[in-house]
Amino acid sequence: MQSLDADYCGQLVDGVVPFWVEHSLDRACGGYHTFLDREGQVYGSDKYVWLQARQVWMFSKLYNALEARSEWLDVARLGYEFLAKHAYDADGRVFFALTRDGRPLRKRRYLFSETFAAIACAEYGRASGDEAALERARATYRLLWRFYRTPGSLEPKIDPRTRRCKALAMPMILLATTHEMRLALGDDPLYDEVLAHSLDEIRGQFLRREERALFETVGADGERLDSPEGRCINPGHAIEASWFLMREAARRDDHGILRDALDILDWSLARGWDEAYGGLYSFLDVEGRPPLQLEWDMKLWWPQGEAMIATLAAYALTGEARYRSWHKRIGRYVSDHFVDRAYGEWYGYLHRDGTVALDCKGSAFKGAFHVPRTLWMCHLIANKDKSLQPWYLA
Amino acid sequence: MQSLDADYCGQLVDGVVPFWVEHSLDRACGGYHTFLDREGQVYGSDKYVWLQARQVWMFSKLYNALEARSEWLDVARLGYEFLAKHAYDADGRVFFALTRDGRPLRKRRYLFSETFAAIACAEYGRASGDEAALERARATYRLLWRFYRTPGSLEPKIDPRTRRCKALAMPMILLATTHEMRLALGDDPLYDEVLAHSLDEIRGQFLRREERALFETVGADGERLDSPEGRCINPGHAIEASWFLMREAARRDDHGILRDALDILDWSLARGWDEAYGGLYSFLDVEGRPPLQLEWDMKLWWPQGEAMIATLAAYALTGEARYRSWHKRIGRYVSDHFVDRAYGEWYGYLHRDGTVALDCKGSAFKGAFHVPRTLWMCHLIANKDKSLQPWYLA
Repeated sequence: MQSLDADYCGQLVDGVVPFWVEHSLDRACGGYHTFLDREGQVYGSDKYVWLQARQVWMFSKLYNALEARSEWLDVARLGYEFLAKHAYDADGRVFFALTRDGRPLRKRRYLFSETFAAIACAEYGRASGDEAALERARATYRLLWRFYRTPGSLEPKIDPRTRRCKALAMPMILLATTHEMRLALGDDPLYDEVLAHSLDEIRGQFLRREERALFETVGADGERLDSPEGRCINPGHAIEASWFLMREAARRDDHGILRDALDILDWSLARGWDEAYGGLYSFLDVEGRPPLQLEWDMKLWWPQGEAMIATLAAYALTGEARYRSWHKRIGRYVSDHFVDRAYGEWYGYLHRDGTVALDCKGSAFKGAFHVPRTLWMCHLIANKDKSLQPWYLA
Repeated sequence: MQSLDADYCGQLVDGVVPFWVEHSLDRACGGYHTFLDREGQVYGSDKYVWLQARQVWMFSKLYNALEARSEWLDVARLGYEFLAKHAYDADGRVFFALTRDGRPLRKRRYLFSETFAAIACAEYGRASGDEAALERARATYRLLWRFYRTPGSLEPKIDPRTRRCKALAMPMILLATTHEMRLALGDDPLYDEVLAHSLDEIRGQFLRREERALFETVGADGERLDSPEGRCINPGHAIEASWFLMREAARRDDHGILRDALDILDWSLARGWDEAYGGLYSFLDVEGRPPLQLEWDMKLWWPQGEAMIATLAAYALTGEARYRSWHKRIGRYVSDHFVDRAYGEWYGYLHRDGTVALDCKGSAFKGAFHVPRTLWMCHLIANKDKSLQPWYLA
């Protein structure tokens, strides 16, 4: 693997982590502020559990895998204790949104809060040695799997007597969640079961080779739906799925999974990259019909980051120079348009033409997760000094 | 009132109505297609009840108030019969979304479908003389008022034990709905009660003179909320409310209501107009903090249309030349950027700089409503030939 010039670790430790350490910590109420403007000033105080949990996971991971800085463990503890105290409802499910002081605002029909709570508890437990955190991770994981597999346990958005469909998001997040659980907690037959299910769903139902696409929504039995929802492609999501698959392919040394992952990446770059202005589109219709999302051509931070990870992983696994070229091309676009050298972190939301549309650094959707994870994963994959675990095992 | 050059009626009858007559009618299943691309081709088949009902209302209104063309009544009947057959649940509430053939997909916790169903049935009943439609209008209206006034009858989005707040949308839509009900069905003490409530809410709770703003969300007792939701201003929504208030002010000859309406219009134009590129922004934070909506600086079709109506109504009511200037300025922006002279109707979604972001003519949100209503209301207000009712009574 030919060397890359980028100093991912330096960008992570000097350009991104300090922004969250300086601005996000809510010492008065616990947990983190995520509504942070360009300079890091707080513009909203509600706490979205998935972002709280992601930040716990991220700082625990840096502590566990990069450097055992007590400051990072302290950051993780602030969020973990907030979650442990406030995030769980009496039924064991996890709220979606809390007030600044932890009172419940919303619980949703989705299990994303639970998936991030599980990996937060697992990675924090590994960092702190807190056995209760590890047990909470296991319990949260078992609960979300039970809810996911029990029809009718979550109120459906669409009347299931009329239409039954399913979303890529769940098998995809289960893949990443399970990988993190295994890393923190060791093997478990349940993890094999979940991984097998997720791989079957993604590869067998959402991937359609004849259309060169990984779809966001399919019918209950994997049918292609001829509707705007059924034709929707989210290039960033597909590319994120591709590196989750690459990680699993590398761990198993499975060339079939790797082939699918690389195909998804190739198709998504070909379809999703804006040749006129650079950057990945947010949503596309596979047939070129009008997308439903107003922001379809905006350039969001996270798809670009996922593409940096996926192209670098593909280069590491195949040695093909075109992946290295793509990685550098995307990295240049990010460096030119997203990185805020004055105040740290990346902008989140650009217009199609690359101008900044919203200059906040955090929101209900953007927290201490995609940017630091991107830089961390790229640092791991590039792994010049060989002192780290292989990237797919760290 | 000095004459305006614009031929609103010609634009309506030749440039907009034919698009919907040619492309939206679903003769096979009843009702209307609203997922229409630039040329009018169908790209999705689900039927959102509020758009079905709005089109019934619009074509009935044109039949009743502009010209008794049997073609327009036929269009209205196609939608009315679909609604009567499929839109109502067993409890009398109205579904939010149906399949193409009328099977229920979603029922929501909001009453917007009911408000549009009520005015659709009322205006269609007036057009057709169908007494069952008029009775359905009355029943739907009574039901939605009962649900609105009965705490706990609709599942809250946010846990009311933690936070209770309310949205401008309901008192605003009740004002417009009640006006239409009264026009179609005559006086009723219930209408006076609803109008009094709506005016008190809008003027007493959402309007804050010291901040020169009409807010989207306030606390249950009208408190200003210091959060992104509580600071949110939707200039198009505020301007739409301003002409609803002007209509009521003109009907009652009430100068206090008129003063509030004109202030809301003035504030919203001052704050919402983009001096760099023209057009009204979609969302702003009253303190200039980051808005929550990614599309905050996009130029959507309906705020511009509402501003055409409101400025023309303000000019008609006050004779002040600056409202005439604003009306012409907004009309020029619309003509230059939104009107599609090749295929009819207006584009719905522009980037901040006025380039087209999404070229569809219809969607889950855009149907045969805001554009024809804008042109119809402007035609009424300009009312050169004096053959029509005063605009606030038509």
